[in-house]
Amino acid sequence: MMTIYSDEHFMKEALKEAHKALEKDEVPIGCVILSQNRIISRGHNLTQQLKDVTAHAEMQAITAAANTLGGKYLKDCKIFVTIEPCPMCAAALAWSQISEVVFGAKDEKKGYSTISQNLLHPKTIVKSGVLEKECSQLVSEFFKNKRASKNHK
Amino acid sequence: MMTIYSDEHFMKEALKEAHKALEKDEVPIGCVILSQNRIISRGHNLTQQLKDVTAHAEMQAITAAANTLGGKYLKDCKIFVTIEPCPMCAAALAWSQISEVVFGAKDEKKGYSTISQNLLHPKTIVKSGVLEKECSQLVSEFFKNKRASKNHK
Repeated sequence: MMTIYSDEHFMKEALKEAHKALEKDEVPIGCVILSQNRIISRGHNLTQQLKDVTAHAEMQAITAAANTLGGKYLKDCKIFVTIEPCPMCAAALAWSQISEVVFGAKDEKKGYSTISQNLLHPKTIVKSGVLEKECSQLVSEFFKNKRASKNHK
Repeated sequence: MMTIYSDEHFMKEALKEAHKALEKDEVPIGCVILSQNRIISRGHNLTQQLKDVTAHAEMQAITAAANTLGGKYLKDCKIFVTIEPCPMCAAALAWSQISEVVFGAKDEKKGYSTISQNLLHPKTIVKSGVLEKECSQLVSEFFKNKRASKNHK
């Protein structure tokens, strides 16, 4: 019998990834990609550590998922990401033809929807607001602490 | 004395990269990134070979350039790319804060400007039409040959 997990279950897994980023003093964003209800890749933001603006959680997870599946398209896959993808990641998800994108909290400043909804593939299902508060607080507290430590220097 | 090369000179270097992609049966797009008039990274499309939708010429060159410079921002850099960047690559170039983007030919279907000019950083200078015909023909002939070989199967 296959256990059907809830969206919250997978968003918690994405949050675990975000916490890994936090431990490395990175903007805490994390994600997981599923194929047939099974996690096939994980990613967390590593832009500082890798000194690479392209090292967003989603970009790493897309590459890893394709590697696991042995093909570049993620047609029957689903991504759970703590924060709304940026335009780069949304466009990468569009190239991958991923079937569903679930994000926790909106990114009012840098989210893809600030530019255009058309950055995602027209067939991709989008869902948001899963564990919204936890996902958003993690990032806002990170930046609050950054500002506080800057003011004390 | 420093030799100042023309835009055509660097676009020819980007075309050399595009030809490397063609030899590997990849959509022939190539680029080079300069810092202080010197090429610090090169890239060509490898999405098929790497089975990775994110393996566009620009994405690889951005990562490599940052690696060479030892920092994630490409503020004083310039990219020469044979075809107008897609939304993913344009947004990655925006994150990198690259100072100038020069492309050969427009991509009427998948270029970033089909979605929004705002995908690039507002301070980034954009120039197009350098060796336009060569850049565009390389891609259109690639697809023409693909269709012809498909019809003969």
